Amino acid sequence: MSEVREKATLAQDAAALMNKLTTEQKNAALSAMADALIARQAEIIEANAEDLQRGRDNGTSESLLDRLALNSDRVTEIAQGLRQIVELPDPVGELLESFQRPNGMKVEKHRVPLGVIGMIYEARPNVTVDAAGLCLKTGNCVVLRGGSAALSSNRKIIEILKDTLQTTALPSDAIQLIEDSDRASVNEMLKLNGLLDVVIPRGGAALIRNVVENATVPVIETGAGICHVFVDDTANIEMASAIAFNAKVQRPSVCNSIETLLVHQNIAAAQLATLVEPMLQANVELRGCEQAQAILGGIQAATSEDFSTEYNDYIINVKIVAGLDEALNHIRTYGTKHSECIVTETAHHADRFLQEVDAAAVYHNVSTRFTDGFEFGFGAEIGISTQKLHARGPMGLPALTSTKYRITGSGQIRG
Amino acid sequence: MSEVREKATLAQDAAALMNKLTTEQKNAALSAMADALIARQAEIIEANAEDLQRGRDNGTSESLLDRLALNSDRVTEIAQGLRQIVELPDPVGELLESFQRPNGMKVEKHRVPLGVIGMIYEARPNVTVDAAGLCLKTGNCVVLRGGSAALSSNRKIIEILKDTLQTTALPSDAIQLIEDSDRASVNEMLKLNGLLDVVIPRGGAALIRNVVENATVPVIETGAGICHVFVDDTANIEMASAIAFNAKVQRPSVCNSIETLLVHQNIAAAQLATLVEPMLQANVELRGCEQAQAILGGIQAATSEDFSTEYNDYIINVKIVAGLDEALNHIRTYGTKHSECIVTETAHHADRFLQEVDAAAVYHNVSTRFTDGFEFGFGAEIGISTQKLHARGPMGLPALTSTKYRITGSGQIRG
Repeated sequence: MSEVREKATLAQDAAALMNKLTTEQKNAALSAMADALIARQAEIIEANAEDLQRGRDNGTSESLLDRLALNSDRVTEIAQGLRQIVELPDPVGELLESFQRPNGMKVEKHRVPLGVIGMIYEARPNVTVDAAGLCLKTGNCVVLRGGSAALSSNRKIIEILKDTLQTTALPSDAIQLIEDSDRASVNEMLKLNGLLDVVIPRGGAALIRNVVENATVPVIETGAGICHVFVDDTANIEMASAIAFNAKVQRPSVCNSIETLLVHQNIAAAQLATLVEPMLQANVELRGCEQAQAILGGIQAATSEDFSTEYNDYIINVKIVAGLDEALNHIRTYGTKHSECIVTETAHHADRFLQEVDAAAVYHNVSTRFTDGFEFGFGAEIGISTQKLHARGPMGLPALTSTKYRITGSGQIRG
Repeated sequence: MSEVREKATLAQDAAALMNKLTTEQKNAALSAMADALIARQAEIIEANAEDLQRGRDNGTSESLLDRLALNSDRVTEIAQGLRQIVELPDPVGELLESFQRPNGMKVEKHRVPLGVIGMIYEARPNVTVDAAGLCLKTGNCVVLRGGSAALSSNRKIIEILKDTLQTTALPSDAIQLIEDSDRASVNEMLKLNGLLDVVIPRGGAALIRNVVENATVPVIETGAGICHVFVDDTANIEMASAIAFNAKVQRPSVCNSIETLLVHQNIAAAQLATLVEPMLQANVELRGCEQAQAILGGIQAATSEDFSTEYNDYIINVKIVAGLDEALNHIRTYGTKHSECIVTETAHHADRFLQEVDAAAVYHNVSTRFTDGFEFGFGAEIGISTQKLHARGPMGLPALTSTKYRITGSGQIRG
């Protein structure tokens, strides 16, 4: 049996035990996991050094090495993440519906764990701990397949977490790490219907595309974000400029940052320079439609390909539009249904934008950067869903649950 | 452009309009559709006669021809189904969450349509109307791909429905019928990410398997049901016999009927004959484990393959088990997580069964036949989900919706 199938089978077997745990048992395990990460941080940092060395030998960029690197502060932060999950309410067992039918049978709908969750992700080892914590809190087992760049770190972290589980009520098989770094192990996971109940990809566009295109297991798609800010002709320009700046510059590498600024033609000539000034100061590269090029001067043309690109970088497209309808149309053509913002003082334009834009999160006079589990008050998140089934937007703990109908009666049969 | 892509594009374009409709506008359209089906029933019955003739020429079985056949009563029933959908509450727009964050931004979570739903199904033309009605009521567009056996009927029905939509506020492009009966048209639908928001298969195991294995579009899996009744040693035998009979015989062709009866060994010798007596009277074929064969005599052995087969027929497996744990184990091995029942007077056995069995619906002293949208009081259903994501069990109208976060503020940016 392959490593993937063997470990998924162990997880599936453990799922039956996980389903019976109390919240207290799960919280005790998460706290013990946090303690153990702190107590054994030297081992983690040592294992991480191997990953870093291998990365340097392979010519990995400094920014990627920085994402990969663990030190005492970062391990403490990761452990703190687990303690935050302890504080979150446990959705499992929640009674969602309860009714009696005319024949006397009683129907209840409860939240239950999904079962076994497959996580496929890239370099950062903090995802390993976050995902394990969120899955265990919701009574799920998890099969983790992290990037090979972090394999030594992940292996050590999982060793510590599994060691810890053996001192708790939770089965240590509830967490599994796939160590096979061949791409084939990912593709095998994607076809494990019956052993994995869902697969959640977290990472770049190519990773997500591979999962969506090849999985027969149900997928929760996360991540890709081509987001926009539309500045209407009644916008408060100072507010619009601050929102656009925040949405582009505060953290360009994340999915809820914007790639394109849409500006109403009525204010373009007078206000465009003011709008983009803070971005120019921050050395953001501007690319523009013809009108924007004419107004701003000296900027490159924005092509259709630019409008379709998630830069994750200090680059922004600027497009002048005839009004709300053209803005809606542009977003419909190029957006990825993630986060979209209108800045306007015209109430019915805001209403139309919020109603008509098809995205996980639609904003009026607020930066798109708030599409995030912590910012919404949900606590740690397993990802931001960009699909419409099951969960949409930041996924809190309930997104890691399913439901079950329990029907009790006294011999009811169907006539 | 292929028929499939062209029609899905028309539907996706219409989706933006559908999103703006009021409940009254949608209900008026559904009522008009019902009226038109009645008014033009002669055309439908004539088109159906072509399907029946083609079926007879191809040697289609009488039972399949019966499922396909439409007459005035059946058309009236189908129209009545639409009127029932009018009566159901409209989930679209429902406010699911509303909260203000410390920074003053207000977050609301609303139900929204999914967008465009692809339905892939088999012969019965009533599904065409049901699916169209349920999708339109929830503000969705629908691309229907029915079986070729019902093509003439479906074509006429859709012609009538689209004609009717032109007299309403709804775009007639909201309903699309794929007429290409080649299997390739199904497989093309399954890959239409960006044009179809979800695909729902309804039909036999092979149809569903093809969809699950080949779709890159998100799928709601429906249907397959290998369901069990476990008769515990404290069961009321009269009740157990009635429930088993009902669950097997009342309608063997449907997914919530049972395929296997599990009986506690303590009562097998004394009670098994009584338990199965009504089924024998109804000419149900019994297949048994060795112990069951020994007790009942003259019945065929039930193999592992039998335990894995959804008979959809007057056949049942009988297996004697050592107790609750073996029953749970058998269900875990052979069940399809659809509907499972325990008959017992031992409360903590019932509790364990309801807690531990991983299925959409778990029953205590009630027939599995109640796993059904009408029986749960949800009204017409688009199918019974056997997956754990998004919707599980009978899917009422909310299963055809997604959600959207609307965030409003006064210039909030992320620090």
